[in-house]
Amino acid sequence: MNNSLLIQRLQQALGYTFRRQELLVQALTHRSYGAINNERLEFLGDSVLNCSVARALYDAFPDLPEGSLSRLRANLVRQETLADIAVDLKLGEALLLGEGELKSGGFRRPSILADALESLFGAVFLDADFAEAQRVVRHLMDPLVAQIDPRDSGKDAKTQLQEILQARRLPLPEYRLVSTEGEAHDQSFVVECVLGRPVIQTRGVGKSRRAAEQEAARFACERIAK
Amino acid sequence: MNNSLLIQRLQQALGYTFRRQELLVQALTHRSYGAINNERLEFLGDSVLNCSVARALYDAFPDLPEGSLSRLRANLVRQETLADIAVDLKLGEALLLGEGELKSGGFRRPSILADALESLFGAVFLDADFAEAQRVVRHLMDPLVAQIDPRDSGKDAKTQLQEILQARRLPLPEYRLVSTEGEAHDQSFVVECVLGRPVIQTRGVGKSRRAAEQEAARFACERIAK
Repeated sequence: MNNSLLIQRLQQALGYTFRRQELLVQALTHRSYGAINNERLEFLGDSVLNCSVARALYDAFPDLPEGSLSRLRANLVRQETLADIAVDLKLGEALLLGEGELKSGGFRRPSILADALESLFGAVFLDADFAEAQRVVRHLMDPLVAQIDPRDSGKDAKTQLQEILQARRLPLPEYRLVSTEGEAHDQSFVVECVLGRPVIQTRGVGKSRRAAEQEAARFACERIAK
Repeated sequence: MNNSLLIQRLQQALGYTFRRQELLVQALTHRSYGAINNERLEFLGDSVLNCSVARALYDAFPDLPEGSLSRLRANLVRQETLADIAVDLKLGEALLLGEGELKSGGFRRPSILADALESLFGAVFLDADFAEAQRVVRHLMDPLVAQIDPRDSGKDAKTQLQEILQARRLPLPEYRLVSTEGEAHDQSFVVECVLGRPVIQTRGVGKSRRAAEQEAARFACERIAK
């Protein structure tokens, strides 16, 4: 797919069209590619992400103390979560990487993907304003926020499932993408969570692969708890 | 001074009048005072502060790499800096503290002051929007940002002066408030920085006591460097 199509599709998936396309391109430019890259935008975008997620959690969980809110946020903004979202957005294909990074598969590296996603949030903040950047963040993160059970320890379902299995010395689950439906900017993912012992298979559906995995893991947690 | 006057003066100093006064009161309520306190607001406000300062630095220093921006921000948002600003705002007098904290001088404790200031930023975010909260943050922080010399190590002038003196095994400086001028919401502070060896006295002027101290320290650094 050519680059302008990739960029158009990415903006659709973000739900935001850049006025200054050069900001979008900068957000997608890894430092290995050139001197004008996304490192400063990442610094800005990291704080946009943190603030937007803080507000989302503050509003969603009026009864949780600030320690729990902090833990929940740390879960939502960690590199793996952001990289998963970036994969759903097909961000890797749109990245500008230096030759070395390109050859070594940098477009799949979680740190590069997570940094680029944060850079995009920073770029929207500059291109429009905070409210718009917050909207983009919440468009991507609200499905994950909606899955949080405030009664649990603040750990997401995949982590909980893993801990239950490890405590029982059982093999870890596998997550398999079953299908992807819908248009690029409005996709649904179906994921299967497969446990070997006890034999349990659950399915989750979500607007992102990660969201679907979380739902599948939550169902598996419920089944295994019985 | 009675409480409603204190609160009125505080809002003047912040440059923001709360629509929902209960949010302001909550931001000023330490956990020792009651169950409805500022802990959750502090969680939110901390991220508002970080994001607003990130943007201020991003705009002010277009040539600095993200590592320097991070260092500069860490300096600006650390507890001592925030507590100094809170002192300038006379925030301590408006705090609601439990009896124990009141007796042990909690209204002077840097951690309590810094937390309450962050809570105020969170409260403005809720009462209005991010843009308004950012305006309040920048009203207080821009004078400090303006004093940053991007060529230096990212350390503020007081820290630099202290390090120079420590390296030469000389006694540390004293900062004395010489005078305060103007109305509560538009004060100017004059501070003297006094070094014993070599004998140097410099004066700084600023919209906050801390800003004035920084200016005095910067002049002292320049004098001592000669």
